[in-house]
Amino acid sequence: MASSKAYIASVGFTPIGDHWEKSLTDLAVEAARGALAPLGKKAPDQIIVGNMFSSMGAGQEHLGSLVASALGLSGTTAYKVEAACASGGSAFNVAYNLVKSGAIDSALVVGVEKMRDLEPEEVSQALAMAESAEYTQFVGATFAALNGLLARYYMEQHGVSRDELSSIPVLDHSNAVTAGHAQFRKAITPEVVSRSSMIADPLRLFDCAPVGDGAAATLIVNDGANVASKHRVEILGGKIATNEFSIYEREDMLDFKATKEAFKAAMGQAGLAPGKLSLVEVHDAFSVVGALSLEAMGFSKKGMGSKDAKAGRYSPGGELPINTFGGLKARGHPVGATGMYQIAEAYLQLTGQAGKNQVPGAKYAATQNIGGVDSTSAVHVFGGAA
Amino acid sequence: MASSKAYIASVGFTPIGDHWEKSLTDLAVEAARGALAPLGKKAPDQIIVGNMFSSMGAGQEHLGSLVASALGLSGTTAYKVEAACASGGSAFNVAYNLVKSGAIDSALVVGVEKMRDLEPEEVSQALAMAESAEYTQFVGATFAALNGLLARYYMEQHGVSRDELSSIPVLDHSNAVTAGHAQFRKAITPEVVSRSSMIADPLRLFDCAPVGDGAAATLIVNDGANVASKHRVEILGGKIATNEFSIYEREDMLDFKATKEAFKAAMGQAGLAPGKLSLVEVHDAFSVVGALSLEAMGFSKKGMGSKDAKAGRYSPGGELPINTFGGLKARGHPVGATGMYQIAEAYLQLTGQAGKNQVPGAKYAATQNIGGVDSTSAVHVFGGAA
Repeated sequence: MASSKAYIASVGFTPIGDHWEKSLTDLAVEAARGALAPLGKKAPDQIIVGNMFSSMGAGQEHLGSLVASALGLSGTTAYKVEAACASGGSAFNVAYNLVKSGAIDSALVVGVEKMRDLEPEEVSQALAMAESAEYTQFVGATFAALNGLLARYYMEQHGVSRDELSSIPVLDHSNAVTAGHAQFRKAITPEVVSRSSMIADPLRLFDCAPVGDGAAATLIVNDGANVASKHRVEILGGKIATNEFSIYEREDMLDFKATKEAFKAAMGQAGLAPGKLSLVEVHDAFSVVGALSLEAMGFSKKGMGSKDAKAGRYSPGGELPINTFGGLKARGHPVGATGMYQIAEAYLQLTGQAGKNQVPGAKYAATQNIGGVDSTSAVHVFGGAA
Repeated sequence: MASSKAYIASVGFTPIGDHWEKSLTDLAVEAARGALAPLGKKAPDQIIVGNMFSSMGAGQEHLGSLVASALGLSGTTAYKVEAACASGGSAFNVAYNLVKSGAIDSALVVGVEKMRDLEPEEVSQALAMAESAEYTQFVGATFAALNGLLARYYMEQHGVSRDELSSIPVLDHSNAVTAGHAQFRKAITPEVVSRSSMIADPLRLFDCAPVGDGAAATLIVNDGANVASKHRVEILGGKIATNEFSIYEREDMLDFKATKEAFKAAMGQAGLAPGKLSLVEVHDAFSVVGALSLEAMGFSKKGMGSKDAKAGRYSPGGELPINTFGGLKARGHPVGATGMYQIAEAYLQLTGQAGKNQVPGAKYAATQNIGGVDSTSAVHVFGGAA
């Protein structure tokens, strides 16, 4: 089916944090300009923007045309792709399929979200749109509340302790200390997590990814694009899969079927055994979600995600380093941009540009980006850096 | 580049109007089930939802996974594509490119919007997100106001009279009388338009597309899909193009450059001369937008869009019938669904299923779907019905 190979030719991103002085457009343009460099004055064939809630965050939709125009590239095909917190990874997947199949030769993908302009209650309301308005929002369940239920069930089913659950946030914060673009560059201990304020029992503040602004972009090309770039990474596989939309609809809510299916398909396309991966960027919007994601991809046995993290399996120098720049918890989680940060980080690792966060000899990487509670999962596999 | 031919295998849609008793999901599922019929129990390779403002309309995002799950097709790749009022046409374009290139073999595209649950001021606010929040919304310009400015300038530049401007709405209402799914099945006269209440001078109520709920869907397949369908129509070409985002940024705001470019590219792909078209579905969200669209596609000379309509060139039996089921003004304009209604109507025409609205011997059709004031335009060309 596929007629070509597809590569990431370049990436661009902003630091994640409070960008009071910059608009949604400013952030998108800043990230995009970095990624567009190898094209010179040429326009990409398409511009695809990943974003979840610019409507609530900025009273703005129609980001495709907006960003194209702000980049001085009006005329260019442009649109937005949305899949809640998996918007970035999903936008990337659409671009990847179009470029790999030869439908187009190049695409700029920009993930962007501005969350800090909203009041905390508004952020809750915006995030709740990732789950069912009719069946969960209506009864007052916030997104954190649903993940709290999930965490309680996970801990009870598998005898996971408070400190074990804290292990992924602790790892994230440790990795972020040397990550220039991370929102929180400060190490924490399990005790810090346990003592932080309760958000949705048993989830505490440090179990939850923070609220921040940011944008990340990549330029995807095939051989037809004839673009010179110093470092490029091949996209070996990628898939968006879905699960039953709401967790209450599922036979086993601890089974992240979307991630399982997306990972299996993407690795199959790549023709790669999981053991070959040098690192994985995992969607740990909440500590429990990180653990269940590791289990769904088969890296940990059921109930062992957090425990394995505590044992050091996912730490730098461990069996499979994860969240090498801090993951969602510490690098940050500007929702529609998050999937694109993960991909940009995989690119930095595979091209040896990860600085103090470099995984030595990194050869293959996977990124996993979730929307809702695994209602959507977009997984991509990268390698073959040149 | 392209590896296959792409076809519309089937369509499904709801009537447009006040669907108080149905949710956004209900509408999407109803339309989708119609389009999915030829697949039997098989799932399409992807489900792509076109929608503009479910966030404001239903407090809901993440429609891809939501609709997949509601259809009993969880697992399937699914996401939303948004480009303001061009969301439907843009979602279709993504699917078309993926299927035609062979990246996938089948895609369900569903355009859906629920507008009537909002208060009128909320609808204004939602529609304003199609234009710049920073530069036009901020100074209080509603979307209707911007189109009002455009209409005044158009009338003065080209000596277009009130009755001439009314000609496209009058034509739309006349065509909709026999259209089962149309929101307003009632003929009007130019006098009705002139006497209707002022919305944004010079635009009156009957210059403006109405507010309504609806969903329309198509199943797109290539030869690899191996799907039996009674009637199929080939998608001969399609393109999304953009313009400078806001009208104040443009050298000539009467020049719909996005539509011009998208139409040219789509017809080029189809290898078709404009004179070969049997009908065109035109995005007349406001009377003036219909006129400028006809001019951008080259069917009318500059300043002549409304005048030509008055002379009967675009009427049934005229040189080039447009808006054969009533267009945006009378069939209705549930924004994110509109592009998909246009495409479903083209399908009905080309397969001889348009009933009393049939254009005799219809062989080729084009659809033009705008987001913002031509900030995005998605044009598709169809033919080769079997």
